[in-house]
Amino acid sequence: MGSDSAIVQAARVSYGKGTKQINQDEALIKYLMRHHHTTPFEMCEIKFHVKLPIFIARQWIRHRTANVNEYSGRYSILDNEFYIPEQVAKQSDNNKQGSGEAFDSSTSKEIIDSLINDSNLVYSHYEKFIEQGLAREIARTNLTLNYYTQFYWKIDLHNLLHFLRLRADQHAQYEIRVYAEVMLDIVKKWVPLAYNAFIEYSLKSACISKTGLEIIRKLIKGENVAREESGIGKREWNELMSILGK
Amino acid sequence: MGSDSAIVQAARVSYGKGTKQINQDEALIKYLMRHHHTTPFEMCEIKFHVKLPIFIARQWIRHRTANVNEYSGRYSILDNEFYIPEQVAKQSDNNKQGSGEAFDSSTSKEIIDSLINDSNLVYSHYEKFIEQGLAREIARTNLTLNYYTQFYWKIDLHNLLHFLRLRADQHAQYEIRVYAEVMLDIVKKWVPLAYNAFIEYSLKSACISKTGLEIIRKLIKGENVAREESGIGKREWNELMSILGK
Amino acid sequence: MGSDSAIVQAARVSYGKGTKQINQDEALIKYLMRHHHTTPFEMCEIKFHVKLPIFIARQWIRHRTANVNEYSGRYSILDNEFYIPEQVAKQSDNNKQGSGEAFDSSTSKEIIDSLINDSNLVYSHYEKFIEQGLAREIARTNLTLNYYTQFYWKIDLHNLLHFLRLRADQHAQYEIRVYAEVMLDIVKKWVPLAYNAFIEYSLKSACISKTGLEIIRKLIKGENVAREESGIGKREWNELMSILGK
Amino acid sequence: MGSDSAIVQAARVSYGKGTKQINQDEALIKYLMRHHHTTPFEMCEIKFHVKLPIFIARQWIRHRTANVNEYSGRYSILDNEFYIPEQVAKQSDNNKQGSGEAFDSSTSKEIIDSLINDSNLVYSHYEKFIEQGLAREIARTNLTLNYYTQFYWKIDLHNLLHFLRLRADQHAQYEIRVYAEVMLDIVKKWVPLAYNAFIEYSLKSACISKTGLEIIRKLIKGENVAREESGIGKREWNELMSILGK
Repeated sequence: MGSDSAIVQAARVSYGKGTKQINQDEALIKYLMRHHHTTPFEMCEIKFHVKLPIFIARQWIRHRTANVNEYSGRYSILDNEFYIPEQVAKQSDNNKQGSGEAFDSSTSKEIIDSLINDSNLVYSHYEKFIEQGLAREIARTNLTLNYYTQFYWKIDLHNLLHFLRLRADQHAQYEIRVYAEVMLDIVKKWVPLAYNAFIEYSLKSACISKTGLEIIRKLIKGENVAREESGIGKREWNELMSILGK
Repeated sequence: MGSDSAIVQAARVSYGKGTKQINQDEALIKYLMRHHHTTPFEMCEIKFHVKLPIFIARQWIRHRTANVNEYSGRYSILDNEFYIPEQVAKQSDNNKQGSGEAFDSSTSKEIIDSLINDSNLVYSHYEKFIEQGLAREIARTNLTLNYYTQFYWKIDLHNLLHFLRLRADQHAQYEIRVYAEVMLDIVKKWVPLAYNAFIEYSLKSACISKTGLEIIRKLIKGENVAREESGIGKREWNELMSILGK
Repeated sequence: MGSDSAIVQAARVSYGKGTKQINQDEALIKYLMRHHHTTPFEMCEIKFHVKLPIFIARQWIRHRTANVNEYSGRYSILDNEFYIPEQVAKQSDNNKQGSGEAFDSSTSKEIIDSLINDSNLVYSHYEKFIEQGLAREIARTNLTLNYYTQFYWKIDLHNLLHFLRLRADQHAQYEIRVYAEVMLDIVKKWVPLAYNAFIEYSLKSACISKTGLEIIRKLIKGENVAREESGIGKREWNELMSILGK
Repeated sequence: MGSDSAIVQAARVSYGKGTKQINQDEALIKYLMRHHHTTPFEMCEIKFHVKLPIFIARQWIRHRTANVNEYSGRYSILDNEFYIPEQVAKQSDNNKQGSGEAFDSSTSKEIIDSLINDSNLVYSHYEKFIEQGLAREIARTNLTLNYYTQFYWKIDLHNLLHFLRLRADQHAQYEIRVYAEVMLDIVKKWVPLAYNAFIEYSLKSACISKTGLEIIRKLIKGENVAREESGIGKREWNELMSILGK
């Protein structure tokens, strides 16, 4: 529902004659994105049918501004489909929430086999419970978090872009990032002008703190800035330097 | 966006094999409405372009689940269009928020003329302010609440029905009720099965309190129930008797 | 945050002089609940710290109007704590989503032992994964849905009562109903007047459909009504008769 | 409801052992704000009682995440209180939505007198309508947008900070900015650590676009960047240079 022109149409009602000067749609959409005038982007709406592992569904559902209809294990029998990573990685040291370097191939195989075995085992018992007539709402509690669920998920473009900004980020778990990347492609085809503005002013932008801006001003003047005197911590400093290409 | 079949499609994903028995769309939609399974109705979305007086826009906007882009008096010049009721009514005695009986025709004319005069007067000064170059954001504060604004208003079907239940109600102000009635007609054409279920289980239904249900049970048994012994107040009693056709 | 008097205070601002007549707090709160004037109830807010199995957390989180901070298996190691029902029941025949009659004791024991064994098994592998240094975000996917998580959950009173109406209902899963019942007790102590109004006008009330009301009117007049001629289905008829104590 | 320590408490549940390293509350709150981990800030809640002109209430109410109870002109009689600016300014040329330079004192006086006269006039007719017994819901439509209303407004800290970021901004209308500034002082006293983090990472921060970051990287290297070759428009360029102190 909606398109780039629905965004423009809503903006021209909101800002009326004030938008006459910006006579090209592309420039207007960029202007809206740049100034966080988010409501015109809410005029577009999209519905996805998503199949995804339960542990990813649990992250996904935290975005509260969407409409959701999820497959229910109370009413229905879950299929024997579960997610196993193609390769497994170690807990990252410096990024508390992410994955780090790869395992050697024999440990990797051992872990993956163990994941597969347990998934098969719990499903075989789930099936047996169902045959015995156990209430589905209890039988399903024996399944592991890598089992697939599915839902219809409907959201407006503004909130979708907010979701994609967080979930296409490198700090997001790999398994949700791959969904975000596919959805970014869909957005690109659906609303190309909004997509470009999103890349420029949101996804590839950076928010620089008050102190960060002061440092940048000094650096541009050619002054030296020492991390220790800057008033910001080591990790934040490294992030800033990485943004500045230093 | 969406239709009766989108509701059915979402419900069948949610409730899966549990919905196989209800093989007709109409019966399924009635079942969903009756049991307050509201999420499938959220799969339909509609956008209205509404022109309405500011005092009505202020009531309307209190429904927080919609997406809105309103004409802005900060950016644009408001048109010389205002709302005047065709006939004016007295403050109701027993309904604290509503309108009661009509005025005699001469008082009615006097009031309506006064409303028109003031509307014209404040607009002539507004126009003069704009000519003088006064900031629009201040100039508009001289307009009365009956001036027209407009917005795009986008909402999902579940929340639209909730809006219509409240605003098509006889306790709603007449001036918003006429909008609600037009919107009800649109819903009827758009999603006829959902509309019928809404009329049956929501708009024309009644919520009966715990004590009200006890009274009904006695009445059905043929017992007499005195208001004084029922434990409920006079006004609530009258409402209950009116629902029961007594 | 807030109390019965905060509800009253907000209502008196909203409805101003219109509420002067209702000079007792109890009557005013009943009036607000009866007429679905819900915003004054939003002035009270409560925060719970809840420990609950993941399959219940997944139902709980669908209520989108709350603020939530949940324990994260990406950052932290989950404890070896899982939920096992004290007794297991068969899938209900007439209630598609619920539990029905109990198993004989030997089948019951067999099922419960199987649930316990699998829970212990997947945790032992989870622990091994963590020791091997596997990324936590993947290791946790091997846990079953009966493992405990925890969250802070903060919500306003109006939305809490809506949650409790749905989750204290007999159609809700037993495992979430026990939480709802404890929370009802807390509400009773916190805002006793709002609690009483909620029981009378919401939890123990019934919404009667348009056709249902017509049937009730006939029954009160002493007329006979045959199910077949009533225009409503068998299940709906039975529910109505049960409400009417027939 | 809540304090800096409620934010910390919620974050420590969410991120569990992952937050042990950050053992000081101040550093943790900064970390959360910097990384847009917004949910812990939702654990604090505040209620304001605000008296404000209707045209400001209309902007304010667009923030949909708050709970509101507003004084109703349908139930109650509005007081004879209206807002008149101390000094009036011309429509800004380069800021389409704002106020620009001041008028000469005689034009200023003329405009202000006109605003006062109209406000008094419409109220005198409003009073007369009420005396005649006109329904309040119609009588109030004769009042101008500068008349005062009031509401209770309750919101969580995360959404309050979002409101303050937009409304304490120089692009916001002066008349709402003065409210935002008073509220910022209240936040400072209530949750001083969150306030400081907000100033550093949000209010005084700047989001730099993809192209903007490329320009900064060149400037830091001592390269010259011409606006015409930069790929960004004149207004955006000026804003960037202003941020960079050039």
